[in-house]
Amino acid sequence: MNLERLQQQIAFIMEIDKMKSIYRKSIITDRSRQENDAEHSWHLAMMAVVLLEHANAKSIDPLRVIKMVLVHDLVEIDAGDTFAYDDAGHEDKYDRELAAAERIFGILPEEQGCELMELWQEFEARATPESQFAAAIDRLAPMLLNYYTEGHSWKEYGITSDQVIARNRHIGNGSEALWQYAQTFIEDAVQKGFLAEKKSEQ
Amino acid sequence: MNLERLQQQIAFIMEIDKMKSIYRKSIITDRSRQENDAEHSWHLAMMAVVLLEHANAKSIDPLRVIKMVLVHDLVEIDAGDTFAYDDAGHEDKYDRELAAAERIFGILPEEQGCELMELWQEFEARATPESQFAAAIDRLAPMLLNYYTEGHSWKEYGITSDQVIARNRHIGNGSEALWQYAQTFIEDAVQKGFLAEKKSEQ
Repeated sequence: MNLERLQQQIAFIMEIDKMKSIYRKSIITDRSRQENDAEHSWHLAMMAVVLLEHANAKSIDPLRVIKMVLVHDLVEIDAGDTFAYDDAGHEDKYDRELAAAERIFGILPEEQGCELMELWQEFEARATPESQFAAAIDRLAPMLLNYYTEGHSWKEYGITSDQVIARNRHIGNGSEALWQYAQTFIEDAVQKGFLAEKKSEQ
Repeated sequence: MNLERLQQQIAFIMEIDKMKSIYRKSIITDRSRQENDAEHSWHLAMMAVVLLEHANAKSIDPLRVIKMVLVHDLVEIDAGDTFAYDDAGHEDKYDRELAAAERIFGILPEEQGCELMELWQEFEARATPESQFAAAIDRLAPMLLNYYTEGHSWKEYGITSDQVIARNRHIGNGSEALWQYAQTFIEDAVQKGFLAEKKSEQ
């Protein structure tokens, strides 16, 4: 056993416990509280396990998708959660998150830190089948939570259906099937009054 | 797209959201509250990513380990969390959990449900390198949380060091290196007063 190496790994494991205290805009389905980043990341990993057959790509590496969703939000330990519909927050998001990635992945032994940094950058770039599918389920998950809580955060932040479509359209780059399905429940959410239609003045 | 199949998968994804409301005995490191099963499962998956090199087995399938820790606690949606040191609770644990597994995995398309059932049974049997390593990190994680919170749940439930050693010794079956490391911080926890020594009357 290389003790110094193991101590770096354990320091990283304990550092990322902070993910359990980073709260997102979505609430969990029992409506008791907001979801946190750690449980969101677990939920995405389970979606990757169960929904991978719906990826557009014929050939896709399941281990890479799962690792990517497990680590994709670690940067929020320093950079915080940026709401999907916060355009101003998205302007400097990458710079804030890159600094966070360097610090957090830097806790690990060098080659492991590099591997996780690459996974995070691949996720952000959305240029591979794995990252396009990972990004698709990362957008589908909060939409499902919204739908199953009668549009809780859509209502709270005054989000309209055109915003939901614009922000989530890229689901189709990872999975046409999941985007087609998402559109059916966006329509249904509007019908049921969970989601407001596009504002008339726009 | 096979819509019925996708609907079964989404029903499963939403059912397992309940993992976010199953609270364990350990508290998270910021000490704000108890840890839940969803975030515990994410934390184990990250430990699998980072610590796999310490497995005893020379050949071990990382995807299988990660999937196993992602699903290992799903049965607790129905069966609840059984505290590691609750001997009575462990007597009928498997029967309660098997019924839960049949219901929960049964929500999925059949061959997917079977795959997750097999992963869970493999985890429970601890007979393969993957399940022995998964079980090792499943025991190491709450010990780390205890150590980093000055023995919070050890103190709350009056756990002694001999109980910790007896309950966690099987870490060595998955990883001698992690068990050796765990023993150093058990000793340190006793030194620092986070964990009581074996009671003198025993």
